[in-house]
Amino acid sequence: MVAPVKKYSAEFIGTFVLVLFGCGSAATAGGELGYLGIAFAFGLAIVAMAYVIGPISGCHINPAVSFVMLLSRKLSGRDFAGYVISQSAGAIVASMLLYAIVDSTGVRVVNLGQNGYGAGYGIGIPAGMAFLVEVVLTFVFIYVILGITSSTSHAQITGVVIGLTLVFVHILGIGLTGTSVNPARSLGPALLLGGQALSQLWVFLAAPLLGGLLAAIAFRRLNVEKAK
Amino acid sequence: MVAPVKKYSAEFIGTFVLVLFGCGSAATAGGELGYLGIAFAFGLAIVAMAYVIGPISGCHINPAVSFVMLLSRKLSGRDFAGYVISQSAGAIVASMLLYAIVDSTGVRVVNLGQNGYGAGYGIGIPAGMAFLVEVVLTFVFIYVILGITSSTSHAQITGVVIGLTLVFVHILGIGLTGTSVNPARSLGPALLLGGQALSQLWVFLAAPLLGGLLAAIAFRRLNVEKAK
Amino acid sequence: MVAPVKKYSAEFIGTFVLVLFGCGSAATAGGELGYLGIAFAFGLAIVAMAYVIGPISGCHINPAVSFVMLLSRKLSGRDFAGYVISQSAGAIVASMLLYAIVDSTGVRVVNLGQNGYGAGYGIGIPAGMAFLVEVVLTFVFIYVILGITSSTSHAQITGVVIGLTLVFVHILGIGLTGTSVNPARSLGPALLLGGQALSQLWVFLAAPLLGGLLAAIAFRRLNVEKAK
Amino acid sequence: MVAPVKKYSAEFIGTFVLVLFGCGSAATAGGELGYLGIAFAFGLAIVAMAYVIGPISGCHINPAVSFVMLLSRKLSGRDFAGYVISQSAGAIVASMLLYAIVDSTGVRVVNLGQNGYGAGYGIGIPAGMAFLVEVVLTFVFIYVILGITSSTSHAQITGVVIGLTLVFVHILGIGLTGTSVNPARSLGPALLLGGQALSQLWVFLAAPLLGGLLAAIAFRRLNVEKAK
Repeated sequence: MVAPVKKYSAEFIGTFVLVLFGCGSAATAGGELGYLGIAFAFGLAIVAMAYVIGPISGCHINPAVSFVMLLSRKLSGRDFAGYVISQSAGAIVASMLLYAIVDSTGVRVVNLGQNGYGAGYGIGIPAGMAFLVEVVLTFVFIYVILGITSSTSHAQITGVVIGLTLVFVHILGIGLTGTSVNPARSLGPALLLGGQALSQLWVFLAAPLLGGLLAAIAFRRLNVEKAK
Repeated sequence: MVAPVKKYSAEFIGTFVLVLFGCGSAATAGGELGYLGIAFAFGLAIVAMAYVIGPISGCHINPAVSFVMLLSRKLSGRDFAGYVISQSAGAIVASMLLYAIVDSTGVRVVNLGQNGYGAGYGIGIPAGMAFLVEVVLTFVFIYVILGITSSTSHAQITGVVIGLTLVFVHILGIGLTGTSVNPARSLGPALLLGGQALSQLWVFLAAPLLGGLLAAIAFRRLNVEKAK
Repeated sequence: MVAPVKKYSAEFIGTFVLVLFGCGSAATAGGELGYLGIAFAFGLAIVAMAYVIGPISGCHINPAVSFVMLLSRKLSGRDFAGYVISQSAGAIVASMLLYAIVDSTGVRVVNLGQNGYGAGYGIGIPAGMAFLVEVVLTFVFIYVILGITSSTSHAQITGVVIGLTLVFVHILGIGLTGTSVNPARSLGPALLLGGQALSQLWVFLAAPLLGGLLAAIAFRRLNVEKAK
Repeated sequence: MVAPVKKYSAEFIGTFVLVLFGCGSAATAGGELGYLGIAFAFGLAIVAMAYVIGPISGCHINPAVSFVMLLSRKLSGRDFAGYVISQSAGAIVASMLLYAIVDSTGVRVVNLGQNGYGAGYGIGIPAGMAFLVEVVLTFVFIYVILGITSSTSHAQITGVVIGLTLVFVHILGIGLTGTSVNPARSLGPALLLGGQALSQLWVFLAAPLLGGLLAAIAFRRLNVEKAK
């Protein structure tokens, strides 16, 4: 039994690391790194956190993952609230640090790795399509999480596979919506930047939850008997 | 015993994911990602699906793989038909979603990650060479699948190795034929686009089957006693 | 019980390899490789050394790691001195070889993969921010090392995860400070180049030690009971 | 006991795959892929072959590796000859296929991924430095192979680590010598191209053997007691 404060601290640290390295790569060196470099920053941060934070809190570091765990009664309502608050706080503090880093160079801060859509963002898909894309991206990400963690026969490699899944989800998604699949990851940059990032935030809060719900349904229908 | 509908659904989802992320990366951000980024999209999609779909259907998500399993009597004729139909349907639906994504930006859709050859495609190899290249690429890919799955001593890492194999097969193949090694992956974009992608499709339907057949023969001659 | 001379030799070789391939990639082909290529050079060198040097010396190849091991009484004061001297020597010899390689082409040697900050280095963050960034980067790197090595249930994958962590730490850090997180790695190039690399060296000696100390505290507070 | 013809066939196939995908990536898409893409092609080909050819022949696919195995009496003189001939044949046939692929596009074939040095090759290091670089690169590569295969406690991940080692050896080496560390890999392109590739071939035949010898000595001095 891990004390709640430890679990919440772990979720704070994990989400802080994900946002600092993932969004930070996009914000400070996106042009140099390209989509592939940013994708590896997000995905490998998950790999590391899975093995270190995982034994403490399960390493959700994503409100959509915690939502699915709440639905499947693996997380209490109280812990759900604690997790989401901790994840949001970690993302916001990471975004504040990123803001300070960019600001310290004298450049006006307009890029903190925020998600978005519409003209001028990526290839310019409209809001409805961005919503659909985020639902599909999150469905794939969380379906993989549910599937691979349902068996212990691949326990050593589980964190690596989940992280590499986030890599390919970003490879496609960065040019479309920036890839959220994680409301906390979108919240941090949007709160710091305001403007369009904040007005478009609703897509990146709602669509990952719906994608997670659909993943939980698909997992139950297709995989659950295999996991017993 | 997994119900057929679950296996076919798993093959549908797996092939949908492979085509959406692999072909989608090429179609929406190919220039930004480069060949390496596209190669990782295809390969890491296989990694994820291997661990999640694998326990349900074996994660063929490729008619050439199902064909080899039919030859070695690990798949019934009835299941072969079910698998190939599901794989094709998954690829077509993924291509339709990609079409809708690109179309939603107001750009005319001419790139869905289709395979090809001849002047204007990659380095411009002719049809016969494209056929030979696809035979060799598929031989390597399926020989690795047969070899590594013949032993359980590397069970945790098997899906990672198969996916990384698809990465290097794409690193070389993208500039030559776009890398099919998978008739379903080629079918989806060709049906949606028509034109040259459709008229050249026969190469990407036939050559992977021949490559798979040769891989099965090499595996039987070289590895089979090791697998006992 | 491994003889001290073997442990010190292993630390020498490991740090030599890290600096030769990591700093060498930046020095001889940084523009061609981009940040992502350099990041993989550093990280994959750690992967390899973890499995080969690890059984001999624990594969610290970083004075900040040895400092944390000293604090937690897993390394004697005598061995701490031996490790740090060996690590520094390995880094200096690697930098000398890199100097000779670049010099042999007739080009004036100004880039040995040195760390730095301020105008003209990366995005140009000031000294205080560079110090903070190095503290945070090292905190994450060493917290992951402490966390994953505290359990043997992931023993096969441990070296891979630590190396992939160094990859994402570099993806973000290269554009900020060049990413030290390792005083020996910074010492080699600075001693060979002098000038700004040497006058800024104090940041890359002190900040990683502070980051390691904070990681040790966080680990003790959050993870230690899990490791029992 | 595996029949010699199977072992030699396995070495032929493995070296064919290494040269086809590694050198082929450089020859047909080097500018598009960059050094990092080429490095992954070489390294991931090793990953795949290690798991599939490994159980048959040990997956040397490199005369320098077979030389070290001969020195340590793990390979008979007769098998050494058979391995080297098979490896060379595999490399030559792969180079012939690459020649045919490039030639089929009507372009004059001047790049088959050959190794080299001097003005106009990479950063232009002279012959003596190229020899030294190849000794060091091969030392690192073969020291890792010897170290990780001396224990079975990491058996599942061994092939991945060896392949990732070849990735970082290429990240640094491509701009210096093109990275041989493998006489067969250098022989194929040199025989097909002649000219400078052939006149410089001696470096890439001799230096990897010396590097392998030094790795065997270091391994015996530092690691051997750990392997018992």
